[in-house]
Amino acid sequence: MLSCDFIAEGHLIDSGILASILNLIVVEGADYNINNFVIGKTNYNSSRLEIQVKCGAERQMEAITEKLVRLGCFEKATPEAVIKESPKDRCVPEEFYSTTNHRTEVFLGGEWKQVKNQRMDGVIAVTPDGPVCKKLRDVEKGDGIISSAESVRVFPPERERSKDVFGFMTGEVSSERSVDIIVEKTARELELIKGKGGKVIAVAGPVVVHTGGGEALAALIRNGYIQGLLSGNAIAVHDIEYQFFGTSLGIDLKSGMPSNEGHKNHIRAINRINFHGSIQKAIEAGVLTAGIIYETVIKGIPYCLAGSIRDDGPLPETETDMNRAQARYAEIIEGAELVLMLSSMLHSIGTGNMLPSWVNTLCVDINPAAVTKLSDRGSGHALGIVSDVGLFLRALADELNCF
Amino acid sequence: MLSCDFIAEGHLIDSGILASILNLIVVEGADYNINNFVIGKTNYNSSRLEIQVKCGAERQMEAITEKLVRLGCFEKATPEAVIKESPKDRCVPEEFYSTTNHRTEVFLGGEWKQVKNQRMDGVIAVTPDGPVCKKLRDVEKGDGIISSAESVRVFPPERERSKDVFGFMTGEVSSERSVDIIVEKTARELELIKGKGGKVIAVAGPVVVHTGGGEALAALIRNGYIQGLLSGNAIAVHDIEYQFFGTSLGIDLKSGMPSNEGHKNHIRAINRINFHGSIQKAIEAGVLTAGIIYETVIKGIPYCLAGSIRDDGPLPETETDMNRAQARYAEIIEGAELVLMLSSMLHSIGTGNMLPSWVNTLCVDINPAAVTKLSDRGSGHALGIVSDVGLFLRALADELNCF
Amino acid sequence: MLSCDFIAEGHLIDSGILASILNLIVVEGADYNINNFVIGKTNYNSSRLEIQVKCGAERQMEAITEKLVRLGCFEKATPEAVIKESPKDRCVPEEFYSTTNHRTEVFLGGEWKQVKNQRMDGVIAVTPDGPVCKKLRDVEKGDGIISSAESVRVFPPERERSKDVFGFMTGEVSSERSVDIIVEKTARELELIKGKGGKVIAVAGPVVVHTGGGEALAALIRNGYIQGLLSGNAIAVHDIEYQFFGTSLGIDLKSGMPSNEGHKNHIRAINRINFHGSIQKAIEAGVLTAGIIYETVIKGIPYCLAGSIRDDGPLPETETDMNRAQARYAEIIEGAELVLMLSSMLHSIGTGNMLPSWVNTLCVDINPAAVTKLSDRGSGHALGIVSDVGLFLRALADELNCF
Amino acid sequence: MLSCDFIAEGHLIDSGILASILNLIVVEGADYNINNFVIGKTNYNSSRLEIQVKCGAERQMEAITEKLVRLGCFEKATPEAVIKESPKDRCVPEEFYSTTNHRTEVFLGGEWKQVKNQRMDGVIAVTPDGPVCKKLRDVEKGDGIISSAESVRVFPPERERSKDVFGFMTGEVSSERSVDIIVEKTARELELIKGKGGKVIAVAGPVVVHTGGGEALAALIRNGYIQGLLSGNAIAVHDIEYQFFGTSLGIDLKSGMPSNEGHKNHIRAINRINFHGSIQKAIEAGVLTAGIIYETVIKGIPYCLAGSIRDDGPLPETETDMNRAQARYAEIIEGAELVLMLSSMLHSIGTGNMLPSWVNTLCVDINPAAVTKLSDRGSGHALGIVSDVGLFLRALADELNCF
Repeated sequence: MLSCDFIAEGHLIDSGILASILNLIVVEGADYNINNFVIGKTNYNSSRLEIQVKCGAERQMEAITEKLVRLGCFEKATPEAVIKESPKDRCVPEEFYSTTNHRTEVFLGGEWKQVKNQRMDGVIAVTPDGPVCKKLRDVEKGDGIISSAESVRVFPPERERSKDVFGFMTGEVSSERSVDIIVEKTARELELIKGKGGKVIAVAGPVVVHTGGGEALAALIRNGYIQGLLSGNAIAVHDIEYQFFGTSLGIDLKSGMPSNEGHKNHIRAINRINFHGSIQKAIEAGVLTAGIIYETVIKGIPYCLAGSIRDDGPLPETETDMNRAQARYAEIIEGAELVLMLSSMLHSIGTGNMLPSWVNTLCVDINPAAVTKLSDRGSGHALGIVSDVGLFLRALADELNCF
Repeated sequence: MLSCDFIAEGHLIDSGILASILNLIVVEGADYNINNFVIGKTNYNSSRLEIQVKCGAERQMEAITEKLVRLGCFEKATPEAVIKESPKDRCVPEEFYSTTNHRTEVFLGGEWKQVKNQRMDGVIAVTPDGPVCKKLRDVEKGDGIISSAESVRVFPPERERSKDVFGFMTGEVSSERSVDIIVEKTARELELIKGKGGKVIAVAGPVVVHTGGGEALAALIRNGYIQGLLSGNAIAVHDIEYQFFGTSLGIDLKSGMPSNEGHKNHIRAINRINFHGSIQKAIEAGVLTAGIIYETVIKGIPYCLAGSIRDDGPLPETETDMNRAQARYAEIIEGAELVLMLSSMLHSIGTGNMLPSWVNTLCVDINPAAVTKLSDRGSGHALGIVSDVGLFLRALADELNCF
Repeated sequence: MLSCDFIAEGHLIDSGILASILNLIVVEGADYNINNFVIGKTNYNSSRLEIQVKCGAERQMEAITEKLVRLGCFEKATPEAVIKESPKDRCVPEEFYSTTNHRTEVFLGGEWKQVKNQRMDGVIAVTPDGPVCKKLRDVEKGDGIISSAESVRVFPPERERSKDVFGFMTGEVSSERSVDIIVEKTARELELIKGKGGKVIAVAGPVVVHTGGGEALAALIRNGYIQGLLSGNAIAVHDIEYQFFGTSLGIDLKSGMPSNEGHKNHIRAINRINFHGSIQKAIEAGVLTAGIIYETVIKGIPYCLAGSIRDDGPLPETETDMNRAQARYAEIIEGAELVLMLSSMLHSIGTGNMLPSWVNTLCVDINPAAVTKLSDRGSGHALGIVSDVGLFLRALADELNCF
Repeated sequence: MLSCDFIAEGHLIDSGILASILNLIVVEGADYNINNFVIGKTNYNSSRLEIQVKCGAERQMEAITEKLVRLGCFEKATPEAVIKESPKDRCVPEEFYSTTNHRTEVFLGGEWKQVKNQRMDGVIAVTPDGPVCKKLRDVEKGDGIISSAESVRVFPPERERSKDVFGFMTGEVSSERSVDIIVEKTARELELIKGKGGKVIAVAGPVVVHTGGGEALAALIRNGYIQGLLSGNAIAVHDIEYQFFGTSLGIDLKSGMPSNEGHKNHIRAINRINFHGSIQKAIEAGVLTAGIIYETVIKGIPYCLAGSIRDDGPLPETETDMNRAQARYAEIIEGAELVLMLSSMLHSIGTGNMLPSWVNTLCVDINPAAVTKLSDRGSGHALGIVSDVGLFLRALADELNCF
């Protein structure tokens, strides 16, 4: 019978981590013995667990270790991290440690060192600058790759026990609740972040424009509530179509009726931008004078329009290469405190994949499946709302007196 | 080879009826010959079709006739209606004619006579008062039942070719469009109907209260825009719970958080009403002083709370017998010009079943499947919106200056 | 500063109950002190918590107590239960204790006594036979009603830490997983329950018939896997329509095409049953010879067709009064070990309301929102599958060699 | 008052085109006079319409003309096409004609000439080889661009009046019908196309693998029923993950439980392929020996894995540039007779954008919104099914004896 001692510390109980640890061990077919457990006497103290895991096979113990590490446990007698060399570009040794989106440390040179550029599904390369999270495709032959979970320590986010909107509402997804309150709390959060010079990122899909939320989002940008825009070609096309022709996918947003020649307006919009060479130049030429993209450019806010297989055009500013688009997205979200995911499942999932778990996200979509998928981030920091994104943005911009 | 000549008149082309007629005949495996077709020269003229249907078997011809009649065709040489006696209460002869929700006439005594109390899936009984639509369960032994489709004429609604909201938007169901326009047009329609003393019916579910639309709906009632309320026990329970405790299903609608003892508030609300004996008496006692049901009672507007298998309570005013509830619903909708279906699929389908096809309906639900189901009424008079009903009602009450 | 000591025992950690307790206290604005905590050393031992709750106001303490009780805590110095008299039929004192669907005991005459007929949202009446759960509407004037949460003890279900389908899959709702495994595990569960003479209840909607699952459900009944059927009028109408005419809502289930006269087949089916007087008599007359309802009647399995506001007919066996229908449902589910909820949200919610939390439920619906709603039962015993109910039932009946 | 005479020919009535023409004119605020209308006497004859459109303004007439052309009308006195020069690469004159996905002819040199490479939202360039459809981004400076709708003739697909699955089921989207029939009819269609050496394209998302449909799709490919595969990186990753580790997104497809180290299996799969350099080389090395991609490569079927912003990896074969991916997709679908869209909204929309309207499509998705979006192709050739794609594919492969 093999055995191994693990330690976990923090708000183990209220965050549900202790429950997860014990369940995991049993489900994996192992046994445990709690050597010591000191519970926080009050809600200001954290708890500490020492637990012995017992099982029959080496491979089973490795699997359990890897999973316990993801829950924040670390081996009592932490060994020095095993570093193996990458055999080829874009390749790692098969024993590589695969990262979570939580804060992570590695036991190197006898001490815990924090990993930089934390993201999900990455590997950890040891560089002169310390351990760094890398995407697989950025790995180069010869990179030293962390290849032992037992020398890694993960810090899952502890749900804060306060009554703020990202405290106790998180995890809920419902179309049967009043959106007003969330609008109000989000407005307060945006003011707070703006006040202290923080960073809010909007990930927005074309539905924002179709549902009449374009002016509200533009107003939020103009008023300094948004510090980065992540999207695709489509929202820019429809935003610009609306500026030029008053339509979105050919529907007149004032009358709700199909417009004359509306079916070709999005192509006409792309054509006009192409004629000027780029969105930037169309703005300089005084041709494009309002809207989401206009405000973004004028404010000098970083943005990225990622291409997709369904694009018309695309617009000149669209980044058609997905590797470059991902790199640009990652650059823009760096340091974000809040990410608003506005009815764009594709770009929101893309963003979520590269986001550390401690960043708050708010997801608004009329499709409950999208909200569920996006809110399920293995952390307590995602709030999902099933609602009409046009009405939501209008209410939010109103609450912030942006019009 | 059998053959039979049919006639159809009206806006056959723009309503798509002519297409349906020809497709039907072919799908049914028959052939046709167009004896005469006079097309309306302009959009103010109607068209007239004389068509010969040819097929091999008697039974096939009967089936085709029945379906052509539903599309508005009638036999050129219309025979006198066949009337057969009901053999038992709640029973009709197997050859009975089954009604549509369109205006219908029967060829009786050598002339076309209009059927009263038109509704879907009924039978036509010949009474001293003329032909009348009856539900199967209201049929009495000995009733004379129309048992020949070939003596019936149906008038499918002709889609009006104007730009009003119930003209050209109908049939569309989308979560990707701006709701503002529909709010505005609905407001104009409500003013119009109120102005001329018409009748608007609201069919509302508890989601109206959960999503914070309760005050808006109450305001619409108070301001005279609603002339009947069809619902179930649940909306009344949650409306009253909100009045008494500020919560809806235990969620505080101001803070969005679960309230103290919130889980039992709906039972407490029922208990308090039970103590007074009825909602009516609780209002008289000054205990219930606001809300959807309060305004309804105070305004003297007819309403019906139909019971269901999932009810708590139910409240004393709830009609727990479904046959009686259907009868009461039917009474209330009589003469309605517009029915607002507000996130209550069950009650909306119930209402739709008894509604003639010429009554406009507007359906708001966040679930596209519900909207699709309710908007598909075999007529051009249903408009479906996929949106947040709380935000929608607030916007509507705002547009009508009801607050 | 008020304070009160509570005790909780059981698998507090792995079931997440300890986390809920601590979170609750903090969210409610109170403080705690853990006086003693003995953690189960291994997964076979249970834990025991003694905790002191401190807060400023009497009313706040009452609210916290009520909520802690729902989580399984009880006061260390449990006082004798307060019993107050019901002032009127259908009425309880405002301080009444509102029940959960978990096993419950009341401290009466110096000892804990188990409550009978456990269900959600009931009250506890003290009878000569001990404490009994009653629906509000069954309360009679003078009944002694438990009116103090602090003398109640609740036993939330402990999630069993095994790998069975109702152990670790519960709580998940996803359309993105293979249904095969669940079919297989459900089949094993059905065999097990059948083998030991247990009770499985099917709650089924008309979609079962529309999607071609009718024969499979009938086969499951015929082969003894189902011991009760809860539904509405509609499934019986469409099941019988299919037996008589091969159609379901007029669609030929063999060809997928609308059938001749199909639109009136459901009314024809009702008419034919009405002619014989009842489903029972139509079976006796040899008119109805197969299908879900036929097998149910032939097997002598108890069933209830609850009426609804949207019913056509209804069929003679339909219980149109909702109070009586609820009573009949409650009778049928008594002692059930597994409830299959088959695409019938209304009847499934109705059933869920009266079901104790320890009964396993499996919910299959193509609408994720329905599955989420039904699987969220405040317990670990509900498993939700987003899938095609027709295909699911066929696969299940196949796996059990029912055809 | 301006006036213009138009002609339309074909099955104008049963396809609903005549209705659309008349409605359009009225909605646009114009009047019409029907100069001549010859209706097909039987269902084997086509109809012919001569109609005069009257309105007040030149710009209005242009808008109406453009829309009438899309419905298949052409000017009675068709003028020679106006050709304008492209002012710049990727740019067209503002008056450009924007294409539909229907067969199209241009009046050039006094005769109607068919446009090649038909697709939606393109422009028509006049080349030495005749008129050709181009995407805007493929336009080169100096290209002669058709800039007058009045010299264009469009042939909207005429719905065939037969009882085949792509005849009368099209346009319907329902989760409430039996899938069996569609499985059977699709199987017959696949056999037919295989028999005559035709081309079926599968567009497939990772849900195919998650729901256990991977082996069925692989079997369909192996048995020669699929001639092209359009997808993204994700399906290949999960298909290969399943081959290597038996999991899909870490879930063991045999047990339905999370697997040991499952969370990192998709990265491990990519890593192993990267090690070999490509999927192709991993197959050659005998490392990848089964699955969707394996069968595709072994059969020599053309495929394209388009990148996206949410990709992990991506795999070496993934085309990360969206312009090149679109070009490759277009190449693969050329000449297709049937496109199966299998739970991949993004790739299916991308494919739909480049598909001529006369190609049949079958879309299977558990999300009704996806099915509605994909089935709404402005033609009668799309059939949508709301169902479980894993169960659907298994049933289809079974029906075709592929296992």
